[in-house]
Amino acid sequence: MIILGLDPSLTCTGWGVVKSEGSRLVHIANGQIPTDSKTPMTLRLAMLQNAVAAVIAAYQPDRGAAEEVFVNKNPQSTLKLAHARGAIMAACGMAGLTVSEHSARQVKKSVVGTGAADKTQVQAMLKILLPGAQITGSDAADALAVAIASAHLGGKTT
Amino acid sequence: MIILGLDPSLTCTGWGVVKSEGSRLVHIANGQIPTDSKTPMTLRLAMLQNAVAAVIAAYQPDRGAAEEVFVNKNPQSTLKLAHARGAIMAACGMAGLTVSEHSARQVKKSVVGTGAADKTQVQAMLKILLPGAQITGSDAADALAVAIASAHLGGKTT
Repeated sequence: MIILGLDPSLTCTGWGVVKSEGSRLVHIANGQIPTDSKTPMTLRLAMLQNAVAAVIAAYQPDRGAAEEVFVNKNPQSTLKLAHARGAIMAACGMAGLTVSEHSARQVKKSVVGTGAADKTQVQAMLKILLPGAQITGSDAADALAVAIASAHLGGKTT
Repeated sequence: MIILGLDPSLTCTGWGVVKSEGSRLVHIANGQIPTDSKTPMTLRLAMLQNAVAAVIAAYQPDRGAAEEVFVNKNPQSTLKLAHARGAIMAACGMAGLTVSEHSARQVKKSVVGTGAADKTQVQAMLKILLPGAQITGSDAADALAVAIASAHLGGKTT
């Protein structure tokens, strides 16, 4: 089972691919897709989508995984995030993939063992769970974390 | 100038194409794209996107237009809407189109003459502004209204 973890964001989307073989996890690849804030929204969304489609074509995942999204203290940021997420999920749909969704708490619990873990703890555990993986940045790390959570928890289809 | 008005929604997206020739408006086409709530989210988004891409290919608009979106009393509905909107705006971006955004108030003011107009008044004015147009339903009507507003107001690029 190959899982594509996604950390959608209009500014910089993280992605990470892991292979789950029984209880064993293998790192396949990870990366980040930045877009330029001076570019019109529609073109940024198309760019994100094309890049995610290229990742899917390259690594042929069986399903996607992403953190759940809620409206937080900054509704405008959440709306931008949801637009990016929609374009990225459409790219998954074009390839016939579903995307399982997991809360931030579930992801931390699954990777570190406690839902209250901080980013540093998550990144330290990623190095242990995916030995040798060169992690591109914090967005790619978040994407790998949600892919691992999805491997542990299974896919709640959306 | 050919304008594609969009009323994005995961349940049923409305679209309407108008041609603006100086101060004259001509109705070109309109329609609605329903998706099935039992289908996984990613596939619904891909379906919406494919349908909007087909409309763009058929009518070759110069730009898109949509109502602005805000987080309202039902944040979960707004998030679904923003996902649909992201997939649809990505379809516009793939075709090199930008999408101008207009508030509901601007759209009503532009079509009816008052920002406080109700849906019935908007639909009655559509019949006058676009004589002979067979309007598919209320989502297509909303899409035609935003296309008309964009023709009047010009494109505020997003």
